[in-house]
Amino acid sequence: MSESKFATKTNAGNFFEDYQVGQIIHHAVPRTVSGGERSLYHMLYPARHALHSSDAFAQSCGLTASPLDDMIAFHIVFGKSVPDISLNAVANLGYADCRWMGSVWAGDTIRSSSEVIGLKQNSNGKSGVVYVRTTGTNQNGVVVMQFVRWVMVRKADLSAPAPETVIPDLIGAVDPSDLVIPDGLDFNNYDFTLAGETHRLGDYKVGEFIDHVDGVTIEEAEHMMATRLWQNTAKVHFDVTSRPDGKRLIYGGHVMSMARALTFNGLANAQIMVAINGGAHANPCFAGDTVRAWSEVLDTADTSAPGVGAIRLRLVATKGGKVGALKGDDGKYLPEVLLDLDYWALMPV
Amino acid sequence: MSESKFATKTNAGNFFEDYQVGQIIHHAVPRTVSGGERSLYHMLYPARHALHSSDAFAQSCGLTASPLDDMIAFHIVFGKSVPDISLNAVANLGYADCRWMGSVWAGDTIRSSSEVIGLKQNSNGKSGVVYVRTTGTNQNGVVVMQFVRWVMVRKADLSAPAPETVIPDLIGAVDPSDLVIPDGLDFNNYDFTLAGETHRLGDYKVGEFIDHVDGVTIEEAEHMMATRLWQNTAKVHFDVTSRPDGKRLIYGGHVMSMARALTFNGLANAQIMVAINGGAHANPCFAGDTVRAWSEVLDTADTSAPGVGAIRLRLVATKGGKVGALKGDDGKYLPEVLLDLDYWALMPV
Amino acid sequence: MSESKFATKTNAGNFFEDYQVGQIIHHAVPRTVSGGERSLYHMLYPARHALHSSDAFAQSCGLTASPLDDMIAFHIVFGKSVPDISLNAVANLGYADCRWMGSVWAGDTIRSSSEVIGLKQNSNGKSGVVYVRTTGTNQNGVVVMQFVRWVMVRKADLSAPAPETVIPDLIGAVDPSDLVIPDGLDFNNYDFTLAGETHRLGDYKVGEFIDHVDGVTIEEAEHMMATRLWQNTAKVHFDVTSRPDGKRLIYGGHVMSMARALTFNGLANAQIMVAINGGAHANPCFAGDTVRAWSEVLDTADTSAPGVGAIRLRLVATKGGKVGALKGDDGKYLPEVLLDLDYWALMPV
Repeated sequence: MSESKFATKTNAGNFFEDYQVGQIIHHAVPRTVSGGERSLYHMLYPARHALHSSDAFAQSCGLTASPLDDMIAFHIVFGKSVPDISLNAVANLGYADCRWMGSVWAGDTIRSSSEVIGLKQNSNGKSGVVYVRTTGTNQNGVVVMQFVRWVMVRKADLSAPAPETVIPDLIGAVDPSDLVIPDGLDFNNYDFTLAGETHRLGDYKVGEFIDHVDGVTIEEAEHMMATRLWQNTAKVHFDVTSRPDGKRLIYGGHVMSMARALTFNGLANAQIMVAINGGAHANPCFAGDTVRAWSEVLDTADTSAPGVGAIRLRLVATKGGKVGALKGDDGKYLPEVLLDLDYWALMPV
Repeated sequence: MSESKFATKTNAGNFFEDYQVGQIIHHAVPRTVSGGERSLYHMLYPARHALHSSDAFAQSCGLTASPLDDMIAFHIVFGKSVPDISLNAVANLGYADCRWMGSVWAGDTIRSSSEVIGLKQNSNGKSGVVYVRTTGTNQNGVVVMQFVRWVMVRKADLSAPAPETVIPDLIGAVDPSDLVIPDGLDFNNYDFTLAGETHRLGDYKVGEFIDHVDGVTIEEAEHMMATRLWQNTAKVHFDVTSRPDGKRLIYGGHVMSMARALTFNGLANAQIMVAINGGAHANPCFAGDTVRAWSEVLDTADTSAPGVGAIRLRLVATKGGKVGALKGDDGKYLPEVLLDLDYWALMPV
Repeated sequence: MSESKFATKTNAGNFFEDYQVGQIIHHAVPRTVSGGERSLYHMLYPARHALHSSDAFAQSCGLTASPLDDMIAFHIVFGKSVPDISLNAVANLGYADCRWMGSVWAGDTIRSSSEVIGLKQNSNGKSGVVYVRTTGTNQNGVVVMQFVRWVMVRKADLSAPAPETVIPDLIGAVDPSDLVIPDGLDFNNYDFTLAGETHRLGDYKVGEFIDHVDGVTIEEAEHMMATRLWQNTAKVHFDVTSRPDGKRLIYGGHVMSMARALTFNGLANAQIMVAINGGAHANPCFAGDTVRAWSEVLDTADTSAPGVGAIRLRLVATKGGKVGALKGDDGKYLPEVLLDLDYWALMPV
C-alpha cells in the first residue's frame, strides 16, 4: 500500500539504509496511564501477583501504592517503537539487557526513544540487522525501563551502500548487582497468606522445574484488544488480509504477559519483574491456541533491600508441550513452544 | 495435572477431608478497584441503573458518589474463594443469606475469607458437602458483604474418616429488617426521569411477572474477560481442553450480572441489590447462547430510610424460554432455564 | 415482544404519533466517566492522536489535561437518546450541525436531552420522519455537544392524524467561525515529533486524498463491548435472533470511531474533532469485515486560537474499496462503502 499515490502523508516506516549508528529516534504519541490500564490488565490476563493487585499489600511491602504491572511499561515502551523500528522488519531476532528502572504509577505519562547501537547488512544485500537500545521515560524525565532488541529490516533501495558493521557488546544476563530495586521495597513483613503461596526464595532450587498447570485458550478479540491498548498497530495483528494464510499473528508480548500471569500458580511470590536477560518467540501463536507455561529456576541472588532476594527463571510458554521439553535433536525449538524467556524477579528470602 | 512431578509448588486445592468446622481460611490476593472496574462493568454488561452510573444521581440520593455495582463486590469476594473452596468442587449446590453490608468505592481494597460452618460426607464415601460463610472486607476492616454457599467436594484420600455431620441452620430468606441500607440513602428527591422509568414500589404487585424483553448473545472473549477480571481462574472457564466436550463453561456469576443488567427494562428503579436469599444455576451456559431474563415479584417491604422500600424478586435467566416457565412436571428446571435467583433490592416507595 | 402481557412495565419506545414539534425529551441514565473510559477507548480503537493520549502533550497545547476522545462524548450523548428516539426507527437518515462545545474530562457526568424540531409523515401513512436536536450537558449544566439527526419512525396507531409538516432549516456545513475552540488551546509550541507526523495545515491541499493504509478486522465481542460501554442497547447489535439473517448489525458509531482512529496514519495532527457537517452509514457493517479508511480534504480555515487552524475532511470507511471510489454511476454508494462522514478538525497551522 505504501506505493499508493495517496500515501504520501502516511508513515512507510524506516528501511535498513535509513538507520545510522548513534542515531536517536524519538517515538511518537506519549501515553498517560490510569487505574483503567490496571483494571484492563487484570481483565486481559489471569494476573494475580498481590503486589500489583492491592495498594494495601504494596504498602505493607514499603511502597506508596501498587505500581502498574511491570509488563504494562514494557508494552507501552515497545509499542511506541514499532512504527519507527519494526514496521518493515522481517523478523524480531532477540532481546537483551532489559531492565525495569522505575515504577509506573497511575497518572504517569510514558514516552519512548531508541538509539541505534549496531548495524550489519546481510550478505544478500537485501536486508540487515538493526540493534537498538529503547528507553522509556516518565513525565519527570525518569527512566522507567530500557532494553536492547535487534530486528532484521529490509532495504528499500538495494543500491544503498552497506554501512560499516557495528555489533554491540551484549551482556549474556543482567548481573544481579545491576538489578534496580524499587525505592523502599521491604519484604520483612511480607504476608505469604495474602500473597497466595508459602514458598520463599530458599525453597527454590536451581534446576527445579515448575508446571504452572493452568491453560488459557486465546480469542481473536482478546489479543487484538491487548495489542491495541498499548498502541502497537502492526497490521499483522489486526488485518486478516495482511498474511497469505488469512490468520492474525498474535503479538509476542501478549504471549509473554499471558505466560507470566500463569506463573502465579507456583511462583506467586516472584512479585516484581526487574530484568529480562534474553528471549525468543519460538513459534507463532494464533487464536484458538491454548497457552500453558512452565518455569525452570536458573539462579538465585541476594539484593541490598531488606528481605528481598532475586530469582532468575526460564519461562517457557507452550501450546501443549511437556514440562521441560524445549528443543529437538536438531537444536531447534519444538513446534509447540511459543516463548523462551529468561528473566529476573524479586521474591522474599 | 496435580499429579505431575513438577507440580509440588502449585495449588492442588482442598479436598473434603481438608476441611474442619470452625476453620477460617484467608483467601489470597487482595484487590484494589478503581474507576477502571466501573467502566469495565458497563462494557461487559448492559448495566444502566442510574445510581451505579452517575455520581450526580447518587449524590441526589444522599450518597457521596456512585458506588461500584453491587455485583462487582460479589464477584471479587467470590472469585478469591475459588482456589480454596471450589477448585475440586463437583458442583455448586446453593447460596443463602447473602447480604451487602457496605458500599465499595473506587480506591477500596477488598479481601475475602471463609469460615467452614458445616460438613456432611456423602454416603458413597467419595465426596461430601462443605458449607462456608464467605466474608468480604475492605482496607479499613469494614465488612462489605457476606454469603453462605455450599459445594460438593471430592475426597482425595478415600480412607480419611468421615467428619461429624454438621448442617448449619440456613434461613430461607433474609428478613427485610436485616437488610443493610447504605448510609445516607434517601429516595425522597428521586428523579424518575433520569432513572428511566416511572414505576415506584407501590406499582409492583406480588405475583406480577415482568418480561425484560432484551437478549444478549454471549461471546467466548466476553465471558472469559469478565471472569478473569475478578481473578476467578477456575480452568473450566478458560481452557477448551478441560472438559470432554471441548466447551468453555460460562461462570455462573456472568449470567447473574447479565440477567441483573437486563432487568433495567422494567425494573430500572430497583437500584441497589441488598440481599440474595437463594440461587441456583439451573443449566450450564455456553458461548452462542442468547441470554434473556424475566422477573417475578415475590414480596415488598418498608425500610427505615427515607423514601426507600425493598422489593423481593425472583430473577430467571433463560436462553429462550417463556416468561414464567421455570420447572417441568418432574419438578426439574426446564432445559432453557439458566439461573433462578431470589434477591432483595431497594426501590423508591 | 412489546405485545407480551408481561411487558407493561417495559419501554416500548416512542412511535411517530408520539412526537410533537417543540417537545423536549430528557433521556435517562446520566453517566460519570473516568480514566477507565479513556483506557477502554484505546483498547477498542487504534486511537493515537497525542492530545487524547497524553496529559503532558495536552498541557503543552495549553489544556489542563488530556480531554477524553471527542467521540466518547458523541457516543454517550447519542446512546442515551436511543431508547426515546430510535427504538422504533426504520432507518437513521442523517446527521447535521454536530458541534463539540466543551471538553469532557475524567470525573464529569454527562446527560442528554433532545428537542423535536421537525416532523413529516410519509405518504404511505405508516411512518414518518422525526428531526431532533440532541444536546449533551455536564454536571455543571455546560453543553458539551449538540447535533441534529433525523430518523424514520413507524406509527403504532395508523389512524392517528398526520401532524403539520415541519422541516427544519438545516445548514449544509458548520461555518468555521461557529466552531468552538477548547479554552486555552494553543498550538504555537506544538511538538510534531511527539505527535507523530510533520504535516501542518498548510501541507494539505483541498482535493487531496489520503489513503490511511491500515485495516482492522472486526470481531463480535469488540463491537458489542464498544456499543454497550456507551449504554446503547438497541437489540440489533446484541441479539442474533433480532434479524432474519441471524447477524448482529454493528453500531454505526463503532465504524465512525474505528475510521477516525485509522486516520492517524496521514492525519496525526488533526487532533480534535470540532464539528460533523453531515454523515451517512452507506452500508451495514458486520463482524468479519475488515475496515479501512481514506480521507479527502474539503476545506481549510483559520481560527482565533494561536497556531490553530481547521481542516474539513471527508472520511470514508470501506470494507476494501479503492481510495476515492464512493458512488456508482447510479449515484448510490458502492457496496463496499460503510461510512461517508464530513467533519471539521483542529490542526496546527
